[in-house]
Amino acid sequence: MEMLAVGAAPVNLRSDNVAGVAPEILAAIEAANAGTAPSYGADPITARLQDVFAELFETRCFVQPVATGTATNALALALIAPPYGAVYCTDVGHVHDSECGAGEFYTGGAKIVPLAHEHGRLRPKLLRAVLERAGIGHTGRVQPAALNLTQATERGTVYRLDELDELIGVAREYGMRVHMDGARFANAIAALGCRPADVTWRRGVDVLSFGATKNGAMGAEAVVVFTAELAEPLRFRARRAGQVFSKMRFISAQLEAYVRDGLWLRLASQANAMARRLADGIADLAGVRLLHPVEINEIFAEMPRPMIEGLLAAGFGLYDRGGDVRLVTAFNNTENEIDAFVAAARRLA
Amino acid sequence: MEMLAVGAAPVNLRSDNVAGVAPEILAAIEAANAGTAPSYGADPITARLQDVFAELFETRCFVQPVATGTATNALALALIAPPYGAVYCTDVGHVHDSECGAGEFYTGGAKIVPLAHEHGRLRPKLLRAVLERAGIGHTGRVQPAALNLTQATERGTVYRLDELDELIGVAREYGMRVHMDGARFANAIAALGCRPADVTWRRGVDVLSFGATKNGAMGAEAVVVFTAELAEPLRFRARRAGQVFSKMRFISAQLEAYVRDGLWLRLASQANAMARRLADGIADLAGVRLLHPVEINEIFAEMPRPMIEGLLAAGFGLYDRGGDVRLVTAFNNTENEIDAFVAAARRLA
Amino acid sequence: MEMLAVGAAPVNLRSDNVAGVAPEILAAIEAANAGTAPSYGADPITARLQDVFAELFETRCFVQPVATGTATNALALALIAPPYGAVYCTDVGHVHDSECGAGEFYTGGAKIVPLAHEHGRLRPKLLRAVLERAGIGHTGRVQPAALNLTQATERGTVYRLDELDELIGVAREYGMRVHMDGARFANAIAALGCRPADVTWRRGVDVLSFGATKNGAMGAEAVVVFTAELAEPLRFRARRAGQVFSKMRFISAQLEAYVRDGLWLRLASQANAMARRLADGIADLAGVRLLHPVEINEIFAEMPRPMIEGLLAAGFGLYDRGGDVRLVTAFNNTENEIDAFVAAARRLA
Amino acid sequence: MEMLAVGAAPVNLRSDNVAGVAPEILAAIEAANAGTAPSYGADPITARLQDVFAELFETRCFVQPVATGTATNALALALIAPPYGAVYCTDVGHVHDSECGAGEFYTGGAKIVPLAHEHGRLRPKLLRAVLERAGIGHTGRVQPAALNLTQATERGTVYRLDELDELIGVAREYGMRVHMDGARFANAIAALGCRPADVTWRRGVDVLSFGATKNGAMGAEAVVVFTAELAEPLRFRARRAGQVFSKMRFISAQLEAYVRDGLWLRLASQANAMARRLADGIADLAGVRLLHPVEINEIFAEMPRPMIEGLLAAGFGLYDRGGDVRLVTAFNNTENEIDAFVAAARRLA
Repeated sequence: MEMLAVGAAPVNLRSDNVAGVAPEILAAIEAANAGTAPSYGADPITARLQDVFAELFETRCFVQPVATGTATNALALALIAPPYGAVYCTDVGHVHDSECGAGEFYTGGAKIVPLAHEHGRLRPKLLRAVLERAGIGHTGRVQPAALNLTQATERGTVYRLDELDELIGVAREYGMRVHMDGARFANAIAALGCRPADVTWRRGVDVLSFGATKNGAMGAEAVVVFTAELAEPLRFRARRAGQVFSKMRFISAQLEAYVRDGLWLRLASQANAMARRLADGIADLAGVRLLHPVEINEIFAEMPRPMIEGLLAAGFGLYDRGGDVRLVTAFNNTENEIDAFVAAARRLA
Repeated sequence: MEMLAVGAAPVNLRSDNVAGVAPEILAAIEAANAGTAPSYGADPITARLQDVFAELFETRCFVQPVATGTATNALALALIAPPYGAVYCTDVGHVHDSECGAGEFYTGGAKIVPLAHEHGRLRPKLLRAVLERAGIGHTGRVQPAALNLTQATERGTVYRLDELDELIGVAREYGMRVHMDGARFANAIAALGCRPADVTWRRGVDVLSFGATKNGAMGAEAVVVFTAELAEPLRFRARRAGQVFSKMRFISAQLEAYVRDGLWLRLASQANAMARRLADGIADLAGVRLLHPVEINEIFAEMPRPMIEGLLAAGFGLYDRGGDVRLVTAFNNTENEIDAFVAAARRLA
Repeated sequence: MEMLAVGAAPVNLRSDNVAGVAPEILAAIEAANAGTAPSYGADPITARLQDVFAELFETRCFVQPVATGTATNALALALIAPPYGAVYCTDVGHVHDSECGAGEFYTGGAKIVPLAHEHGRLRPKLLRAVLERAGIGHTGRVQPAALNLTQATERGTVYRLDELDELIGVAREYGMRVHMDGARFANAIAALGCRPADVTWRRGVDVLSFGATKNGAMGAEAVVVFTAELAEPLRFRARRAGQVFSKMRFISAQLEAYVRDGLWLRLASQANAMARRLADGIADLAGVRLLHPVEINEIFAEMPRPMIEGLLAAGFGLYDRGGDVRLVTAFNNTENEIDAFVAAARRLA
Repeated sequence: MEMLAVGAAPVNLRSDNVAGVAPEILAAIEAANAGTAPSYGADPITARLQDVFAELFETRCFVQPVATGTATNALALALIAPPYGAVYCTDVGHVHDSECGAGEFYTGGAKIVPLAHEHGRLRPKLLRAVLERAGIGHTGRVQPAALNLTQATERGTVYRLDELDELIGVAREYGMRVHMDGARFANAIAALGCRPADVTWRRGVDVLSFGATKNGAMGAEAVVVFTAELAEPLRFRARRAGQVFSKMRFISAQLEAYVRDGLWLRLASQANAMARRLADGIADLAGVRLLHPVEINEIFAEMPRPMIEGLLAAGFGLYDRGGDVRLVTAFNNTENEIDAFVAAARRLA
């Protein structure tokens, strides 16, 4: 481990949620602790959040702060899919694969239909083909209700605006509503360099899971509703799901600090840049092959078994998926950390 | 407002969840921010919590940290009541009255049956009478499955050990399981001066909602399972409910700090003492009548309308329930604050 | 048993669903058996049913034949109450008391709120008082969504038109939708002598459980939807509930025969008349006291224990409810049968 | 249409549920109409059914008569899969594809996982491969709970006993319970020539959907439970699902007549033989290709478009699936009917 700077621990790239809390956000939590505040979201910080997000998204919207990404996704789906509805996503979609059936639970038993992906992206052609044989109007079949998109995707890629137009266009033809899972929304916006509105309501997204936890918050996410009539049901569904904090100011303060003065994009840009640096550093190593384009802060790569074992033995964190690895950089990773990882990998090559 | 000490704001007694976070708990959150940690509860702090609670409750148990009281209650009920079950509680029970149907949601539609209370307490005689005509075995009727007790109760009283024995005895006769809603469990333990085990598993409680948020945490509660076979379902039900935090260390750290060195009981004792001081200070005022015994940190009282209006106008916080008021003291209320409230009330009498 | 005509069995008045099938309806089933027919409701008889009911109710409506009353009620409630909604009914309401939580199941966990009744009827004043403190807009509380009325009521009485106006008026003020449980709808219409439209959509009923089984069908009920946008969800909810018969023609044929040429009202009138005859025959007996007005085919009465035991010993069927009895006449009860019952009761008086 | 016997209509082979009711079963319904009977399954016929099925299956079991196949399947799954469970079936499995999400509804949101089939059969190797990466114990993933097998399959094939052993063996290794969807159970037993016990509990099946409707009943199915502790929940789940008939004797009478003196197997054998005859008659026609082995009463075949159109134009019923057809013979199809179909097809070849 001679390659590590004195005192530095090997970087943990297993996931971005192994990281802690950004200093600005922790400071906001501490500041929110002054005095008393009305509970269950009646506090001034939560009230301000409506305006903060209206400005961020350049439109009135309704923001419901909750504490987990699974909660945002499941609440969002429950708003747009009836129990007899079908929700289409990719077969690596978080709502399908990683939330223990939360979507089924919150919707009252809708069917989540996983479709093949290309580098994490759902393709319009496949969606259309599936919808054409979905049996619309046939009571034996669940009815197309919602499209779930993850932006950025679970394979570290990003939908471009024209791709969203095409995909959401198909959904709209079939009368479906659209949910965007933005667990890594900041990373996607940083990568695209566009405005948040451009990939959401301007493209036809009805409801967004706005993630902050993976990008420096402690535990703060928000359901952002752009379609007005979905706001009222959300308030009650969130409460009944046990997702409304009595001391909500502490969630709202995280969200406010997160988007203030562009912090969220600075954090995401750093994570993205570190992934880029890491990918560039290992892409040419023997036995290493990038499996998907590296567009945000995630790298999926084939890696020789001895390299994986060696990195783990040296104390580096990575997600060993059997035949390949996932490496996720976080908002607070440094060039030194990444360079140390690359150096170790090169030595093991 | 001349009665206030210089710089002091009038105390807000609307609820204990208007208070912020105890310094020791905030410090634990900050300390937990060092370095990286495995997510979703695989971190060392969460692991330690199992031992911490085993010691606290003098038995092996399973602790699932979650973030809201509603979540703890709804998860607990889902463990012990099938969809065709009946859950008995009082008609002021939080699970019936204040959680927007979370219990119905999490159980898959069990029926929550509210029964008359006496100062917040459910009486064994009434429970037995209801169970006798519940139609056991008759498929048209939901089947007795669970007893929900709130300790301390929603009216600021506490079940004594012999009361628990009698009530839970009835439940056991009918094969029901027992859930204790301990949103103010610390206040109850502080009031009773007994060990946590004495009012829970030693009395036959299967699962406990262990509250911390109302008593100085930021957002930290725990489902504590004493009946072993309920632990495994809990892990999955919590995840699917969106109640498992990716950065769970920050919840677990709150809980650890909360119970370390008896902090939780010191905080609760302070709150209880302040309620006692307040009750003693206003009980003899003209038009004031205490509606329930003041056994923890809550006071329910009739209060003359001009007194209520005057206190609110002076900036004091209280819960105006129409004909009466609720006053709740918090872990960090001081004698000065309480005395200022009493003085204001006396002047308005 | 010398009072019985030769060969006659003592009449069974335990419930109207102990009776079999009216000959006209059985004949319709047999006739429907000719040839093949498209399944799942695409058959000609089911298609005709839409017109038959449009004529019966003097308006376009949507009819979904199902097979149990519980199914009609639960489906109806699921159409008009969201999971976070409250359904108001009486505390003897079938949806609350006798369906093992079907309403909770089908709605995804709505709360069914039982209110005190007067002779089976819900009173507008009580409903209004409850709604006034229901906490509308407060996310901790389930939100008023639906009014459930049973016509005729579970205590054998009937809502008059002006009573419906007043009650439904309150519901409408609060934005609630209205479900009428018409398990004994025919008996109510026969008693009121009005048109079916007069007690349903003309009064503001959104959806009706149209019962036929208790009044001579084998197993045939219908959800009748008067509010157009509820029809489409009903089709899918019924299918997913396992309530759509593959050989639906046999259910639809029952319903068609039931309403053809006023059969349903003739059957109900006979049942009602027999209850009237029975009530008149026993009302003046020592120890007998009618507990509710006898307006349809049900009698609730206090009855001396020896009389109850004597009747049961003689082979008569009645529903012994402990302190009192329920007697229900059916479409095919005869004057001789009723007279034999009365004679036996008089002898036992 | 000169090939048709005088007065004969072209046979409708669209599905076996386009057929009516077998005379013996209709007679049983008529016989059950005598007198009164206790409701909701307390009648003597339903009581007898427990013994009838105990004899049929050579073991004590619990029989719950319901009226639709979807209800039997959804109830069965709800008994063996918790809300956080996964149910494995084929991608043509009725529970996945044709019941509008009934399984998701009744289980409270379990995930139904469709796997590739071979001629309708699920292969043990695939099941094992899927289970190996199912993430057992990982709370982000739904947990393997139940195997759903259709016997006979949705592609007209039958699992042999050794195939069941191997497949159920894999399920048991993983602690899963087993549901057999026997919508065409009679056809499977007739094809295999084995005892009902041999393909059910002797192979490890916990719960069976015992179909009768497709094979000559009017609307009668049964959930048959072989694992004792599942019986009690079934009674309540069925009631709350609106699946318990008040006049249950009419369902039970169908089931009793169905299995009495081997009627069910005679009916199924006839249907199977007619499918065999039909397959033999068309298999060698130009452009016709059988897609799956014809082992029961279903034929799946590629068929030239002109032949399909010609048959439909001539009044024959078939299920035109776009590129291919499904032909299903019923219990009451005759050799003449089949021969007429074959003759018409040959002329169109």
